[in-house]
Amino acid sequence: MVRALVFDVFGTLVDWRSGVAEAFRAADVPGDPGELADAWRARYRPILDAVNDGQRPWGTFDELHLVTLDDLLAERGVSVPLAVRQQLVHAWHRLDPWPDARSGLEELRRERVVAPLSNGHVALLVDLARHGDLRFDCVLSAELANAYKPAPQTYLTAARLLDVAPEDLMLVAAHPSDLQGARSAGLRTAFIDRPLELGPHTASRQDPAADVSVADLHELAVALQ
Amino acid sequence: MVRALVFDVFGTLVDWRSGVAEAFRAADVPGDPGELADAWRARYRPILDAVNDGQRPWGTFDELHLVTLDDLLAERGVSVPLAVRQQLVHAWHRLDPWPDARSGLEELRRERVVAPLSNGHVALLVDLARHGDLRFDCVLSAELANAYKPAPQTYLTAARLLDVAPEDLMLVAAHPSDLQGARSAGLRTAFIDRPLELGPHTASRQDPAADVSVADLHELAVALQ
Repeated sequence: MVRALVFDVFGTLVDWRSGVAEAFRAADVPGDPGELADAWRARYRPILDAVNDGQRPWGTFDELHLVTLDDLLAERGVSVPLAVRQQLVHAWHRLDPWPDARSGLEELRRERVVAPLSNGHVALLVDLARHGDLRFDCVLSAELANAYKPAPQTYLTAARLLDVAPEDLMLVAAHPSDLQGARSAGLRTAFIDRPLELGPHTASRQDPAADVSVADLHELAVALQ
Repeated sequence: MVRALVFDVFGTLVDWRSGVAEAFRAADVPGDPGELADAWRARYRPILDAVNDGQRPWGTFDELHLVTLDDLLAERGVSVPLAVRQQLVHAWHRLDPWPDARSGLEELRRERVVAPLSNGHVALLVDLARHGDLRFDCVLSAELANAYKPAPQTYLTAARLLDVAPEDLMLVAAHPSDLQGARSAGLRTAFIDRPLELGPHTASRQDPAADVSVADLHELAVALQ
């Protein structure tokens, strides 16, 4: 019995690439805005792994995004004032949700507890939820476990805080690696297809090991009935 | 500038006494239901202090409520089956909000981040918010600080997770001791009068040290303008 649903956020509920590309465009950073967004995001996994491996101290997404942005700009020999770089970092706080996210969460929370479970920090997730008018029952984050997904303690901390057994908790995500991490911690999993996450040329993804695979949150509500 | 508001819950947003008394009545526990509710609640502060002092391990409110209920019933020589005692413990998950709470939170969150900051654990607060249709931007709890209010780290953990300076965070509470704890941690404070918290004979309370004192959440919204 699925008693609660936790959602990956970046790519699963919100369209990070369009918002970040728009911020690069608005900031007049030289280069293709979409490619810059992709290149910034590509530095995400390595820096989180460094934290999980103990090679870096814990950091909020604002702190880590500034480090990875500075690395990216340095690599390309582009100079951008700090105030503009901070605006770019803040772009991650006001990303638009995918079209089904707001109404889908409303539908799903009639029957079950819903919460984000993101590697983003709590304050960032609060801003995203307010920006997109996304209603959650609470906000869960890697910050509350001091470990980033896919470390098992991130998922297990969510189950503990919601007071549900791991097998009664389902992670909803567009990323097979996240879903695999959740399964390793004993959670159920729902794969949601977001074919535009990386722009029009996003490679097709699927996760045959997921309990359910859906095209949007409304399909998930039907699948859970 | 008050950027975010955190709210005490039991007594400040929800009417614990009526709900718990009703649960004693429904369970046919011998004695006056309101007096039983008061006597149970009176065992709250000592057991939280024992945890903060390191004399007891951390416990959720469900765990602590069961301990204090068992002590109360043993003291009175009353025998109640475990299933009924668990129902009584669960009554704390479905308490009705004060009449202004739901609409007041909606009004306040238009301008500022709003969150509970309760000694109750996250899962309990989620149940209360769903029961009363209270909309928060996230759920903050002593559970996330591993210390109960009025320990300063409870308030400081809330400020850290919301990414605001303590002086930009305001605690709203009906209890001067809670407000004093918040001030000791550097927060601003709003006293809200709940003259029915302990039934019709609640002693009058005030907190002259609070930044604002109001009769309900709508008055608070006006005061913060």
